[in-house]
Amino acid sequence: MKEMIRRRTEPQGRKVYERVRATTGADALFVSDETYKKYVSSYFTEGGYALADETGVALFTDARYIEDAEKELSPLGVRVEDYSGKNRPELFLKRYKKVAVPFSEISYAEFLKLQESGVLFADATEALRECSTIKTESEIAAIQAACDIAEDALLKTLPQLKEGMKEREAAAILEYEMRALGADGTSFDTIVAFGAGASVPHHETGDTALTFGDEILIDFGCKVQGYCSDMTRTFLFGDDKKHGEFKKAYGCVLDAHNKVLCGLKEGMTGGEADAIARNYLEEHGYGKYFTHSLGHGVGLKIHEFPSLRKGGEETLKNGMVFSDEPGVYLAGQYGIRIEDTVAMCDGRAKTFMKKVSKELTVL
Amino acid sequence: MKEMIRRRTEPQGRKVYERVRATTGADALFVSDETYKKYVSSYFTEGGYALADETGVALFTDARYIEDAEKELSPLGVRVEDYSGKNRPELFLKRYKKVAVPFSEISYAEFLKLQESGVLFADATEALRECSTIKTESEIAAIQAACDIAEDALLKTLPQLKEGMKEREAAAILEYEMRALGADGTSFDTIVAFGAGASVPHHETGDTALTFGDEILIDFGCKVQGYCSDMTRTFLFGDDKKHGEFKKAYGCVLDAHNKVLCGLKEGMTGGEADAIARNYLEEHGYGKYFTHSLGHGVGLKIHEFPSLRKGGEETLKNGMVFSDEPGVYLAGQYGIRIEDTVAMCDGRAKTFMKKVSKELTVL
Repeated sequence: MKEMIRRRTEPQGRKVYERVRATTGADALFVSDETYKKYVSSYFTEGGYALADETGVALFTDARYIEDAEKELSPLGVRVEDYSGKNRPELFLKRYKKVAVPFSEISYAEFLKLQESGVLFADATEALRECSTIKTESEIAAIQAACDIAEDALLKTLPQLKEGMKEREAAAILEYEMRALGADGTSFDTIVAFGAGASVPHHETGDTALTFGDEILIDFGCKVQGYCSDMTRTFLFGDDKKHGEFKKAYGCVLDAHNKVLCGLKEGMTGGEADAIARNYLEEHGYGKYFTHSLGHGVGLKIHEFPSLRKGGEETLKNGMVFSDEPGVYLAGQYGIRIEDTVAMCDGRAKTFMKKVSKELTVL
Repeated sequence: MKEMIRRRTEPQGRKVYERVRATTGADALFVSDETYKKYVSSYFTEGGYALADETGVALFTDARYIEDAEKELSPLGVRVEDYSGKNRPELFLKRYKKVAVPFSEISYAEFLKLQESGVLFADATEALRECSTIKTESEIAAIQAACDIAEDALLKTLPQLKEGMKEREAAAILEYEMRALGADGTSFDTIVAFGAGASVPHHETGDTALTFGDEILIDFGCKVQGYCSDMTRTFLFGDDKKHGEFKKAYGCVLDAHNKVLCGLKEGMTGGEADAIARNYLEEHGYGKYFTHSLGHGVGLKIHEFPSLRKGGEETLKNGMVFSDEPGVYLAGQYGIRIEDTVAMCDGRAKTFMKKVSKELTVL
């Protein structure tokens, strides 16, 4: 297990370079944002850039990383160089005719600087998106590991929740358990909401204390090899018999969540996926309380493509990973969200989550 | 204490708007990156944008945040609106003549989209940097709270370190303690290095187990109200009497660190600050092992302006907050870094860290 978790994903620069060469005629791919540097070179750095061309993939970085990066990347055929002096991008790029750069990621200021090289530029956004939304086997393995850790950590956390505990203490325990189980960190700031605070979809975890009869909403994730998991569960902390409306809504959200898992097929659009849940919730009178999208791509970023939202036109393909997270929020009363990270696999949606029940659980 | 910690920092949009109006003639300020949206509006969101003009500051967001944002921001005079429909930026901006946008933060793709509005654009990078590097009282209070929590958490963690414990377990404990003490999250992925792993300045926290006689390097921080702390300490886990060279180097790094704290004066450049530590380490034969910069600004981002590096030309001013972190790294042998977050205050450097000793401590 540990071996599998820690295996480095492969550098994907070659694949993206070949695509931009075919679609734009570029003779190099240049990326400088943290996520695509990792994707192209398989190594995280702050600063510097990654480059792919006919000769292969190179990571340009600085003294903080060079020793370790060379050790990690030379077996994978990725060159590691210092990015200063003649390797500054506006100088280094002069050797090319046309360089593909992701316009969606590079800042306008950095783009102006690159233009000093005098070469032509093409947009690499589509090529990077198309490649990175289709996960490789080792990327899927990293996401599976991040999901396994998240589920195990939640199962270890639930028995530790006690009356009077603050939301931030519960988040601390959950994050500790994920770290101790091998996560590299959280994939976003953990959301723990006790009681009516859950009616805010992006509730800020705070000092609210847990009380008998409260609902508990936990939305959280961790990273393995940079790859994220994303998961939400909603519980009751004791049943004070005042939760009739809540339970009815919970059942509908769970049905909507499951209908997506069962009904999704390769080739559907993000909008059609969203409609499975949205139509069901509308039929049951909860349409206007489902105030966000069904889901979003999950990978090196916690929010990436595809977008599973009303009218979304992206086609869902095998190898894509995204969240299935319908929710219902009644301001000041309650909020319910049930979320798995899922992969499109052999034409159907397959959840990564298998350990924490989605049936309404009274803790 | 809790009251102080949780107090929301004030929206700074008005101040930045007035500066861009004066310097560029812009009649609006537009920001869409997460950090400057928080800075301008005092509220964190994903997506949307913040705007400041003659009429005040507004946050354009979506249903996930609107309920909470209105509650939090209306007492501060910040309008909250939905960003869809006629409020889409390329439509909304049509009402202005010239809009200031931070070219350093906006992506080239988003900038192309904004240009559909047909208005003129000016660069807001300098104005935002100049304003945000000079911290207000409530920003300083948030950073002080983040530093206090970091120090308290480290003091609670050190007695829990045991032989055989893995780096990632130590990181898990430290992060738990920060969370339990009131942090909103970590300010970056915690670095824990046992033994020779510390010779890599950006060591990846892993499965190395703690052994008697190891050095321990811990580089970590947390966030309060979005504001970061940054701190590094280096310890010995038992003294196996083989640490003569290490101890000598430790003494020099500590002296270099302290010389910066004592010698820094308002009006010096980042390069002059860096030189205080660098010259001292060079005089003692460690120059070539000090492989990174002395420090970096700390605020809503863990790495921001000013940069305290060789040749850095930015002037250090009262109200700036940055790290003082000289280090010495001998590949495969040892690494030493001693880091405080400090503020320039009344013309001198003043550390936020007062609880964890910097004298070499054998645990």
